[in-house]
Amino acid sequence: MSERKILTDYVYKMVASLVQVGVENVVVSPGSRSTPLAYAFASTKQLNMYRQVDERSAAFFALGIAKATAKPVVLLCTSGTAAANYFPAIVEASYARVPLIVITADRPHELREVGAPQAIDQPNLYGTHVKWSVDFPLADDAAPTLPFIERHIARAIAIAMSAPFGPVHINVPFREPLLIDFRDELPEATFKHSSMAQLMPSKATQQELSGILSATKRGFVIIGELALGADLTIMWEFVRQLKWPVIVESLSNMRASVPEDCLPYIITTYDAIMKSEDFKALVEPDTVLRLGAQPVSKFIMQFITKSQPDAYIVVDEDPMFRDSTGVSTHFIHASIGEWLTQLEISETALEAEYLAEWQDANDIALEYIEHYSKGAIDEGAMVSRLLKIIPNGSDIFVSSSMPVRDIDTFLMASPKDIRIVANRGTNGIDGVVSTAMGFSQGNNRETYLLIGDLAFLHDINGLIASRYQECNLTIIVMNNDGGGIFSYLPQSTVEAHYEDLFGTPTALKFHDIANMYDMDYIRVDDISELSEKFASIKKRPLRLFEIFTDREENVYAHRALWNLINAGLKAWQS
Amino acid sequence: MSERKILTDYVYKMVASLVQVGVENVVVSPGSRSTPLAYAFASTKQLNMYRQVDERSAAFFALGIAKATAKPVVLLCTSGTAAANYFPAIVEASYARVPLIVITADRPHELREVGAPQAIDQPNLYGTHVKWSVDFPLADDAAPTLPFIERHIARAIAIAMSAPFGPVHINVPFREPLLIDFRDELPEATFKHSSMAQLMPSKATQQELSGILSATKRGFVIIGELALGADLTIMWEFVRQLKWPVIVESLSNMRASVPEDCLPYIITTYDAIMKSEDFKALVEPDTVLRLGAQPVSKFIMQFITKSQPDAYIVVDEDPMFRDSTGVSTHFIHASIGEWLTQLEISETALEAEYLAEWQDANDIALEYIEHYSKGAIDEGAMVSRLLKIIPNGSDIFVSSSMPVRDIDTFLMASPKDIRIVANRGTNGIDGVVSTAMGFSQGNNRETYLLIGDLAFLHDINGLIASRYQECNLTIIVMNNDGGGIFSYLPQSTVEAHYEDLFGTPTALKFHDIANMYDMDYIRVDDISELSEKFASIKKRPLRLFEIFTDREENVYAHRALWNLINAGLKAWQS
Repeated sequence: MSERKILTDYVYKMVASLVQVGVENVVVSPGSRSTPLAYAFASTKQLNMYRQVDERSAAFFALGIAKATAKPVVLLCTSGTAAANYFPAIVEASYARVPLIVITADRPHELREVGAPQAIDQPNLYGTHVKWSVDFPLADDAAPTLPFIERHIARAIAIAMSAPFGPVHINVPFREPLLIDFRDELPEATFKHSSMAQLMPSKATQQELSGILSATKRGFVIIGELALGADLTIMWEFVRQLKWPVIVESLSNMRASVPEDCLPYIITTYDAIMKSEDFKALVEPDTVLRLGAQPVSKFIMQFITKSQPDAYIVVDEDPMFRDSTGVSTHFIHASIGEWLTQLEISETALEAEYLAEWQDANDIALEYIEHYSKGAIDEGAMVSRLLKIIPNGSDIFVSSSMPVRDIDTFLMASPKDIRIVANRGTNGIDGVVSTAMGFSQGNNRETYLLIGDLAFLHDINGLIASRYQECNLTIIVMNNDGGGIFSYLPQSTVEAHYEDLFGTPTALKFHDIANMYDMDYIRVDDISELSEKFASIKKRPLRLFEIFTDREENVYAHRALWNLINAGLKAWQS
Repeated sequence: MSERKILTDYVYKMVASLVQVGVENVVVSPGSRSTPLAYAFASTKQLNMYRQVDERSAAFFALGIAKATAKPVVLLCTSGTAAANYFPAIVEASYARVPLIVITADRPHELREVGAPQAIDQPNLYGTHVKWSVDFPLADDAAPTLPFIERHIARAIAIAMSAPFGPVHINVPFREPLLIDFRDELPEATFKHSSMAQLMPSKATQQELSGILSATKRGFVIIGELALGADLTIMWEFVRQLKWPVIVESLSNMRASVPEDCLPYIITTYDAIMKSEDFKALVEPDTVLRLGAQPVSKFIMQFITKSQPDAYIVVDEDPMFRDSTGVSTHFIHASIGEWLTQLEISETALEAEYLAEWQDANDIALEYIEHYSKGAIDEGAMVSRLLKIIPNGSDIFVSSSMPVRDIDTFLMASPKDIRIVANRGTNGIDGVVSTAMGFSQGNNRETYLLIGDLAFLHDINGLIASRYQECNLTIIVMNNDGGGIFSYLPQSTVEAHYEDLFGTPTALKFHDIANMYDMDYIRVDDISELSEKFASIKKRPLRLFEIFTDREENVYAHRALWNLINAGLKAWQS
């Protein structure tokens, strides 16, 4: 058989296997070594092919699509440092549990580690941050090769899509010549599909949990970011049955589209009210049940560590024991599933007063926050206003650092349908623009990105994607000229080296970037302009809304709000 | 002892040890977890501290300083994906053999792998691409701790600075609180210094090599990029004594400041003349000696593979066997050293005609190139003109892809003192702006960066460094709107998907970027404007010189030149 036909068979077998097991989207970065697969992707009509020349941004773009679709997304790059540029997004995918299928083209064995160009040690390149790494054989016409390819592609997807989801790595060597023949039809798949297990707790575990919950007089639930594709109707049913105070982080998406009968149980202001020592003393729990990732707020986690509940139960899909309090008493290995709504829980054990205390404190905090939103002029107030302005049925991608905290403070539980998404696997400020752009591609809802100036700058190359495919996104940059979050940390009390090491102002403004990338640009200097200017956003696919705020004012205003809430709680308690 | 004093002692011991063993430059990216060390660096007057918020660019910036100074450069970042962003530069440092000391702050053990924010699996994060990785203990006042810190810092530097140089990784966990007391004086070092071995071939090996060289009738030397800090006076003395044709790649820096008596032996046009089948048949060698990295030109390496010399000797500092021809016959583990000039070599064995053939062909090619430089209007001609215009005593940092090839084609051997530097460890187009900016910091010579539009865009964030320290650099962007190098590959013969996968034009121009970063900006649309516009470059620290060229014209002109040289060689041979 000709070399060319062998290579053509090999890459179309890979593509057919990917399509067969549910891959719809691939993100390709240009390069020579990856040519055979890039051609096969480009010529396959069952796939959407996206392109991005900066591989770091490409990987985050793929991550965004995967977050929006809850399906595996394929990355493809050439050999060399291209593959190393994927690393930050892979690490994020690993902890955020997102199924990325990372395909790196490699040099053939005779050109590895011999000083040949663009050749690095690619097998196992990503170490412990992928669930699996496999080095494929070179294309040949030996009988086992194509069946191997087909099963190992399916295996990679199965591993990525078994709970907890995560990234996998397929390294594929190609020997020159790299040209293939284009085919209109994919070869038929002999492997059909994988059926992944549900992670269920045993009956005994369910009974034990029911027992603990039913005996609890003082308890609450914390719900952080849930697994991709988690079924919220189950969560609502659980809330309805349990009737406990349920602390929901904004990323759980249980503050939006809240069913009326669940609203009374939803506590959103925990970060603020957990700053009150008196309130914490009042609501010391016997039992805490935690589902999903750890929430953004340090204060709620510190409260648990300090109060050492008799039962602190962590439910998670990964036996990695995702809890940093150090005081957990039970670990339940499980996914969100029907079993949660089948627990037999006494509805009478929990003290009515305990629930009321949380509800009252939450109401008090909400009132102050509402008042603040109307009067203050800082970044927090801006975020609060934006949450009101952004239309029903939209999604907000939120950067780490201050934006995710402001959203968590200012987004109230309501029937309004606004989903909040962020990169909280490792909480980096890298790759945020790209992830949001990818998310908006995988999504048929209007998407907004809320981001600080340093995070925007860090992934400014995310915008390159818009040169290769139409990308629809409204980017809202809170430009406070530097690292705003450090103002809240003890480092801010040390004047020496503060601006050099933490403030790190760049004095950059982004009008020129908007120009370069042909974006609509609107500048906001004062909160009084916000609504009107927001309404004037035009309809080019990419829109940049730059809001100038002041780091000192932001800290001052946030602290003032917390103090007010604290005082309000004190007045209420006394 | 107070926690704060223990932490202060710990970080100043690290800093004192780094200073003691020769570290002068550190590049810090802002973050919270790295606070204690960042404070200690910032407060130590013996260190230059550079800053860059994009860690990918920060690592390449450090790489550039290390390339300029041939000394270890320290990187410091916070925990999480920040550390993953260092990966591309670390991979490059590994293959380019550059001593980077990568310090990643980490969460303490109780916050690792438990879902805490910004916590990833950092020990051994960089896998096989660092020479060593160590996970430091937490600060404490146990007797062994400070002596351990001191020796392990010295050990890290010793490993990085033993031949071949390379990156090392120190992971340092810090527990809160992260504040330290500032100190004016560093603690005294008890460890003095490491003395690294020279890699010398044994006497027997030297005699064997002398024997082979002395018996060679037809042989040549290839010199690629040499180790950081290699002594060129030894190389010149070796050329003088050997009197063989010596093929020097531009990155060897043996085309600049060439001693008059060495000039006749220096062959620079090998890539062009190796495209002539007739000439290759004429100069089939018995012996080839190769020093340094593999050269840019594929053609010379393919010639060696095909001609299978009786002796093909590779000299290298690393037993990794850095040669991709597959036909090496001898490997000598050694650094460039006096031993090269002490070989006893017969001056009469080499056929005078063999040398003359190389010299004549080189002269013919040079004449065509010279002629071409005067008449052509494409990117190659531009590069050739620039090499004439750029003043004596300058350095040119050259991007991978086409710029490094154009420099290799158009830079002639001469007494003019222009050094050529590039990232050729893995030949990536990533991080090039940052490496050039770092290089110019570590250097007291005027620095120029020659780069294509995609590579410039890929590391546009390299420019952020200029917001934190004055960076002096003239950036010459050859904007041919996409991936020019692919036009020379077989992929360019396949029309389908070519622009989508390889050309990848962005239609971006960089005037806005120059504006945003307050750079002088000059635009060149035609070669006739080049000299005058170049002379008009103003004196702001950062200067952007954007030259618009045409991908098709470039390929056409390069091919025309090669055809002319080929025909010229044919006429000369017949």
